[in-house]
Amino acid sequence: MTERIREFLRNRREDGPCLVVDLDVVRDNYLDFARALPDTRVFYAVKANPSPEVLKLLAGLGSCFDTASVAEIEMAMAAGATPDRISFGNTIKKERDIARAFALGVRLYAVDCADEVEKVARAAPGAKVFCRILCDGAGAEWPLSRKFGCEPSLAVDVLEHAHRLGLEAYGVSFHVGSQQGNTEAWDQALGSAAGIFRECAERGINLSMVNLGGGFPTRYLRDVPTVEAYGSSIFQALCRHFGNAIPETIIEPGRGMVGNAGIIEAEVVLISKKSASDEVRWVYLDIGKFGGLAETMDEAIRYPIRTPRDGDAVEPCVLAGPTCDSADVLYEKVPYPLPVSLSIGDKVLIEGTGAYTTTYSAVAFNGFPPLKAYHI
Amino acid sequence: MTERIREFLRNRREDGPCLVVDLDVVRDNYLDFARALPDTRVFYAVKANPSPEVLKLLAGLGSCFDTASVAEIEMAMAAGATPDRISFGNTIKKERDIARAFALGVRLYAVDCADEVEKVARAAPGAKVFCRILCDGAGAEWPLSRKFGCEPSLAVDVLEHAHRLGLEAYGVSFHVGSQQGNTEAWDQALGSAAGIFRECAERGINLSMVNLGGGFPTRYLRDVPTVEAYGSSIFQALCRHFGNAIPETIIEPGRGMVGNAGIIEAEVVLISKKSASDEVRWVYLDIGKFGGLAETMDEAIRYPIRTPRDGDAVEPCVLAGPTCDSADVLYEKVPYPLPVSLSIGDKVLIEGTGAYTTTYSAVAFNGFPPLKAYHI
Repeated sequence: MTERIREFLRNRREDGPCLVVDLDVVRDNYLDFARALPDTRVFYAVKANPSPEVLKLLAGLGSCFDTASVAEIEMAMAAGATPDRISFGNTIKKERDIARAFALGVRLYAVDCADEVEKVARAAPGAKVFCRILCDGAGAEWPLSRKFGCEPSLAVDVLEHAHRLGLEAYGVSFHVGSQQGNTEAWDQALGSAAGIFRECAERGINLSMVNLGGGFPTRYLRDVPTVEAYGSSIFQALCRHFGNAIPETIIEPGRGMVGNAGIIEAEVVLISKKSASDEVRWVYLDIGKFGGLAETMDEAIRYPIRTPRDGDAVEPCVLAGPTCDSADVLYEKVPYPLPVSLSIGDKVLIEGTGAYTTTYSAVAFNGFPPLKAYHI
Repeated sequence: MTERIREFLRNRREDGPCLVVDLDVVRDNYLDFARALPDTRVFYAVKANPSPEVLKLLAGLGSCFDTASVAEIEMAMAAGATPDRISFGNTIKKERDIARAFALGVRLYAVDCADEVEKVARAAPGAKVFCRILCDGAGAEWPLSRKFGCEPSLAVDVLEHAHRLGLEAYGVSFHVGSQQGNTEAWDQALGSAAGIFRECAERGINLSMVNLGGGFPTRYLRDVPTVEAYGSSIFQALCRHFGNAIPETIIEPGRGMVGNAGIIEAEVVLISKKSASDEVRWVYLDIGKFGGLAETMDEAIRYPIRTPRDGDAVEPCVLAGPTCDSADVLYEKVPYPLPVSLSIGDKVLIEGTGAYTTTYSAVAFNGFPPLKAYHI
């Protein structure tokens, strides 16, 4: 919670839940990344929070952008980024979208299989491609599925295929898992990347770049290591695996760039018990899984929640959203401790919500409007 | 798939996934419900598909409406429903929203605890309230959580509280679980309801109504019982528990009213393997969990998928959406059999998607627009 957000909320008169993002915190986060990894280019993961204010601030600071769609490419360009600072980082692209990105000037594309390479070769001739590899995600609070990337053994073939089709086989990418708490998590994947560099070199292909991905955490209920700690650990791993031939590197922070910059203010709509002897109270907010808190899916992300009654005695509560959907429950497997004195109508503050909230929210589920957002 | 939808898709020129709903099927479904339960009023669950065309059709046929928010009440009224045909069926309501509904003329409210009763008593004096009770949901493909309703033992107190505060203690509601395949599932809950009627009568309160809720299934991969079978089983259970004093009843079909009326057309964006020896192919569509298929959460709903290669040999595939989100995977725990010949660029048809798709879709996640919909 920053003084600027506190001031904004004090003066807000509109009804309904809202997200407030303090752009000063985003600026500080960007500068932390730039300092911690001075030889690495920062590609902000636009999907985390694509608000024009965030994009404009980062473009002005010199950030590059990792994008998931043509719409995100257009947003980054509208914010002032030139196309040479944009990566089309989604491994799943329609060929006509690759062509649109190419027409906009984008020359850097992610791939993870031969068919995607062929699309890029046809629609973006001569472009640079990097191949995403699978990574086990150990240590991450939200290990990724196997959706993106191929086994390292296949990556060499994919990159060679790109090379033969006239593309620039540019490098390797991986993702160590979202909200990665282990600063050493990059080591193993960098070992795989170095192996791919060697095998490609044996086939006459010189790779240039390692995309270190995202995974940098934001603080929820537990402390997380500093960005400096990640930077130093990654640099050591680079030296270990690449010796004196350290490649060009990029990072793609999303959550780590904007997560801690935002706070959602919500309202307690109802508090009830299911029976007279029930030991757990149900607390219903005016925001839930479909209103922006989708990352509570499987109770994956546990947000810090501040109430006006903090300091009073607490008891375990099931926390749920306002919709007529029985799946719209935030925390139940592990109930959330909230003040016994918490009352209907109280405003609560959900911290660490600057990333992956606004754009996840449903268009109009149950007639509720999408999450409002203010970037100040 | 109806001929009208087939014809519409043949002539469609726009890009991107879309839902097409055949209103003739919705009409048939309404008439089936009205015939199967001739003494029961139908309150369509607006949240399932709040499109103006669906609401207008149903209002014209004489349907009533179960609503989750003031916005849904306004949509039902805009479609021609008078407020006496509208129930504010969400048990979680802000007091100012109850007041807005009351000002619009709505007189029927759901409650499940004393605090909600007090809000209704203050904001909608004299209105009718029904108390939702918990129900175990056995037999449902998607049993509901304990989010809505109280234990039957508490319901009598809740209704008495309403009575004392000048509200009309009108009845009891329950929900047997979504996609309920067992036509007998209403029996146990009706037994509980009858018990509440008796206990209230002993306290001098005469309840009038049982809200039988939703749960009526739509056909996905498996056949489901006919609406007639549900109607006859429910009528028998009413006779069993209420004898010759059968109360007024209402039902709230949502999925059962619109599910089978809609089909989503999507496109295969990519097909890949994670390694040369991988036995499962990954098939990526241009629609996923955040684009309207949220009910694939935990692989709960398994939609029938038609491809232009049906009849060819099939193999198990992991099916995933187009976003850069590793949770955007539709079917992986139980891979989906799809034709080996399926190719990038093929259009597929996802059946049974008329309910709980459009309004679930995210506003702009990864820059992808919300699901387009056509009601024909």
